[in-house]
Amino acid sequence: MKEGGSLRETLERYFAAARQRQLDELFAFLRIESVSAQKAHAGDMDLAAAFVADDLRRSGLQKVEVMRAGGHPVVWAEHLGRSGAPTVLIYGHYDVQPPEPLELWNSPPFTPDVRDGRIYARGVSDDKGPLFVALKAIEALKATLGELPVNVRFLIEGEEEIGSLHLAPFVAQHRESLRADLVLSADGAMWRASEPSLTLAAKGLCGLEIQLETANQDLHSGRHGGGVPNALHVLAELLAGLHGPDGRVQVQGFYDDVLELTQAERAEIARLSFDEDAYRKSLGMRALFGEQGYSTLERQWTRPTLELNGMGGGYQGEGGKTVVPREAMAKLTCRLVPDQEPEEIQALVAAEIERRCPPWARVTVRREGGLARWYRMPLDHPVLPLAAEVLEEVTQRPPVKVRMGGTEPCAELFQRELGIPTLFYSFSTSDEQYHAPNEFFRLERFDQGLLAWALLLARLPEGLRAEPISAGR
Amino acid sequence: MKEGGSLRETLERYFAAARQRQLDELFAFLRIESVSAQKAHAGDMDLAAAFVADDLRRSGLQKVEVMRAGGHPVVWAEHLGRSGAPTVLIYGHYDVQPPEPLELWNSPPFTPDVRDGRIYARGVSDDKGPLFVALKAIEALKATLGELPVNVRFLIEGEEEIGSLHLAPFVAQHRESLRADLVLSADGAMWRASEPSLTLAAKGLCGLEIQLETANQDLHSGRHGGGVPNALHVLAELLAGLHGPDGRVQVQGFYDDVLELTQAERAEIARLSFDEDAYRKSLGMRALFGEQGYSTLERQWTRPTLELNGMGGGYQGEGGKTVVPREAMAKLTCRLVPDQEPEEIQALVAAEIERRCPPWARVTVRREGGLARWYRMPLDHPVLPLAAEVLEEVTQRPPVKVRMGGTEPCAELFQRELGIPTLFYSFSTSDEQYHAPNEFFRLERFDQGLLAWALLLARLPEGLRAEPISAGR
Repeated sequence: MKEGGSLRETLERYFAAARQRQLDELFAFLRIESVSAQKAHAGDMDLAAAFVADDLRRSGLQKVEVMRAGGHPVVWAEHLGRSGAPTVLIYGHYDVQPPEPLELWNSPPFTPDVRDGRIYARGVSDDKGPLFVALKAIEALKATLGELPVNVRFLIEGEEEIGSLHLAPFVAQHRESLRADLVLSADGAMWRASEPSLTLAAKGLCGLEIQLETANQDLHSGRHGGGVPNALHVLAELLAGLHGPDGRVQVQGFYDDVLELTQAERAEIARLSFDEDAYRKSLGMRALFGEQGYSTLERQWTRPTLELNGMGGGYQGEGGKTVVPREAMAKLTCRLVPDQEPEEIQALVAAEIERRCPPWARVTVRREGGLARWYRMPLDHPVLPLAAEVLEEVTQRPPVKVRMGGTEPCAELFQRELGIPTLFYSFSTSDEQYHAPNEFFRLERFDQGLLAWALLLARLPEGLRAEPISAGR
Repeated sequence: MKEGGSLRETLERYFAAARQRQLDELFAFLRIESVSAQKAHAGDMDLAAAFVADDLRRSGLQKVEVMRAGGHPVVWAEHLGRSGAPTVLIYGHYDVQPPEPLELWNSPPFTPDVRDGRIYARGVSDDKGPLFVALKAIEALKATLGELPVNVRFLIEGEEEIGSLHLAPFVAQHRESLRADLVLSADGAMWRASEPSLTLAAKGLCGLEIQLETANQDLHSGRHGGGVPNALHVLAELLAGLHGPDGRVQVQGFYDDVLELTQAERAEIARLSFDEDAYRKSLGMRALFGEQGYSTLERQWTRPTLELNGMGGGYQGEGGKTVVPREAMAKLTCRLVPDQEPEEIQALVAAEIERRCPPWARVTVRREGGLARWYRMPLDHPVLPLAAEVLEEVTQRPPVKVRMGGTEPCAELFQRELGIPTLFYSFSTSDEQYHAPNEFFRLERFDQGLLAWALLLARLPEGLRAEPISAGR
């Protein structure tokens, strides 16, 4: 079968005709407040899962199920229409980050708004928009070709933003019905809007919450101050000690398993055009800061980090309150690189915090969110030249090869449990304010994504060796 | 006139007969939510001021006025019934600290509850209970003697808990109608429940609020983390640096004007019985902590302090949020000793914070709350032996001489503006959880206070030289 120009033209006509309907559907998806971290949104999680399942059913997939997975539901689907063709497992997530702080949004987070060629909404870039692109590529191929060019399975989860808490046991339990030759991930992000990119690696993740206590009550700062420990002083000192003035993480053993970059890897990153000053200005920063001895891209892509995500204690309201606070808290996450193990780093950080707690305070450190290992794509995998070819065709630019500071725990999990690599094939862009107010998704990338997903799926039989697959569930 | 036994008996009979009515009145006062720091309670501030004014009117004082003072109103009153007798200016405050955190109260903060000989309510110990004692002593003297034994003036403010913002201009403007020979303060506190005390000194106060910012938005900790400044890291580092490991405040010039204690002063404090271990245990602390080289009492009574009252930034809610926060805040107050000047220390701390802010952050430091100078009572003042005599008579124990870690800005103000010293004559006790949940006031001290106020007022003509005073307003 020769898809070339004719398939592309067919698809372009299809997407042009369907565009308004497809956008309306996406907006309906975005209006569902599927915030996985907040218990109040449990009902919205079910709505979002049902939305994905219904869409796949309408596209004519053979099997579609909303499955209980221990926490928020998983949408699983399967369509094995081409015996002998490779099978692709399509991954994405329908959950989104909390929208707070609400006052910083220019339009309400769950009321999609199109401005200047961008759709603004919580989750539109991470990951509802890119996931919807995959759904609509499937719809278009089925509608225009009558049958999909490859076999597909879907695994769409609702816990990515809270660390994919129940994904590992789910995959282990459903290994047979998830088997495939390759994972195509609708999650991840292009490096920037000006050129396409292929992501070769992602970081691991572990998180901790710290509760610190010095007394059984808040105390009057006049009566007691100066003679008793202050929980805020202890916490500030403890947290400050977790980094050195050189920006390095001061946790015993933290760097022990870190593989240093090769000269070739550093050179490859250095060749990429990246304007540090423009980047700094775009974020309203006076100066960049990070681990000494590394460039910004090296820090973000290849070096492990420890970031405080929240911290608080005492009186934060209006006016003053002259107390010596009795307790304080902090949340932190580490991003991990080869060969750091998340459980091990989590334990090292917890031990460091306990070791640094002075005798006049009590500290409790507990796991917060899920663990994720880092991931790397095999550099000689045949899908890479196929994807590069499609990206260049669709965008008129050859893709650059990048790494991610973010986490793709699923990629590592799929490699471990299913023995297959994951190609990140999301059409969101890393500047689209995901996890922040005013998250957006570029309409141009939406259109490119539809075509690029459909073309790549159509060409996979050319390059990918197919293992025999039998129907699942 | 010989008051001796007979006046005491008369007063005791009066207070016994009036007790339930007086407690009912006190409870009505306590139910008014006069939180000066919170704008929502502006109406309650007016109610509390009216309560005090109405009470003084019912006692038959010649002049009673609720006066606008720039912020919350001042209650002023005057009764010059004894020409040639000394004049006493009675000071107190009707405002209270915010009641938060509400969930830690065993009974609602504005619903007075009597348990085990204690009244529990926000403000009952600081300062509504002690102020009410003064009001009822006046009522009793007027009712039993027909005329007060001394001339009195009242100055009851509503901004003590927010730093007496408008008190200084008010006093300067009404100097003539506030003139007196002595201030008796219903604010302050006895050192402990087991023995009476006379307070010879109080600390000064200044406060600051810090706003720190690193970027124009919260950032994804995967995409950006490691390569950009984190507002929480910067704040923790900055705040940690304000104290050394020896517990000393690391602000340039902070100790320059501090008068070191004499050997005699240190010996006097060391002679007081104070069980550090029992104190530590009562507050549920693992260990005490403070400036090296000083005892706990020396730290709390005689050494300047810098305490963080609140601190926060990033995501403090349920679950996790993988952000690099763009901003963070902190509130702090310093307690000051002779000869530190509050404006000067405030400026030194602000300068230190600005100096410590790294180039990758912006910090804004602003004044929070009022300024207060420290205060010391002249040790040879004739009211001291009179008060000691009354306290011993009423409590059967000689009072010990102590200092306060807390602030009495009014005492310093009265010395400066009116040229007269202040005797702290409150019957609250420093362990009564003021500024904390479950604030309480001992009923025994309430009863002792009524008698001791009435007896001291009756004996003041014996020891105090009277300056001629003319009617005010």
